[in-house]
Amino acid sequence: MPPTMKPTPSSSGLEARTRFRVQVKHAVAIGPGKADVLQSIAETGSIAEAGRRLGMSYQRVWSLVAAMNSDFIEPLVQTQRGGTAGGGAELTAVGTQALAIYRAIEREAERAVARRLPQLLALIRPDAGAAPE
Amino acid sequence: MPPTMKPTPSSSGLEARTRFRVQVKHAVAIGPGKADVLQSIAETGSIAEAGRRLGMSYQRVWSLVAAMNSDFIEPLVQTQRGGTAGGGAELTAVGTQALAIYRAIEREAERAVARRLPQLLALIRPDAGAAPE
Repeated sequence: MPPTMKPTPSSSGLEARTRFRVQVKHAVAIGPGKADVLQSIAETGSIAEAGRRLGMSYQRVWSLVAAMNSDFIEPLVQTQRGGTAGGGAELTAVGTQALAIYRAIEREAERAVARRLPQLLALIRPDAGAAPE
Repeated sequence: MPPTMKPTPSSSGLEARTRFRVQVKHAVAIGPGKADVLQSIAETGSIAEAGRRLGMSYQRVWSLVAAMNSDFIEPLVQTQRGGTAGGGAELTAVGTQALAIYRAIEREAERAVARRLPQLLALIRPDAGAAPE
């Protein structure tokens, strides 16, 4: 389970999940997927390892990194060419800052949702979502 | 633009959008799409008209309604068979309540996000998202 998918247990045994995205024009400048990519690169120091951890192909991780690097005022991820595994990757100062702000916004949105969520969950059947759509 | 997609103008001229979903197990019990379906049915009194307004097929609207009617403790939408256009549709008391709670949660999450969003937008280029991915 990726780090942004935080289950909120309710009294009825249901789990609820909240996600948010920041969209700029038609593109998602940053959302749960890109935030997880940044976090995994920060933790593993490698694009390939971040991909393995997130179940994404190297190409997919790379294309998300490239999009972020061009959409933000400065690159968020810095890569080093060469070395045995093709070099490492790390967050730049702006990358670290963007991830921290994203997670802070996410936490505050989750807190806001959690306050009223029990009212909604009380209206949902405990066995909801069991049947295929 | 569906009602849940509220653009937040920023000082840099970017627009940002926030959405949230309540997931129960693997299914979205209610999210932006289903909330818009409920709201359109409440406003138009018709599944077909709600579909036209949202750019969804009748079948798609109907399948979302059927899922909500079975996932909640009581049906959210009541339909009347017969009549010239196949009968009307309206929200039940529980449907009205679920939509109101959903919108309230959404507003509070948006408010929470809006407070810190300028910090993130300040890191995004004004022309971000212009290039195709």
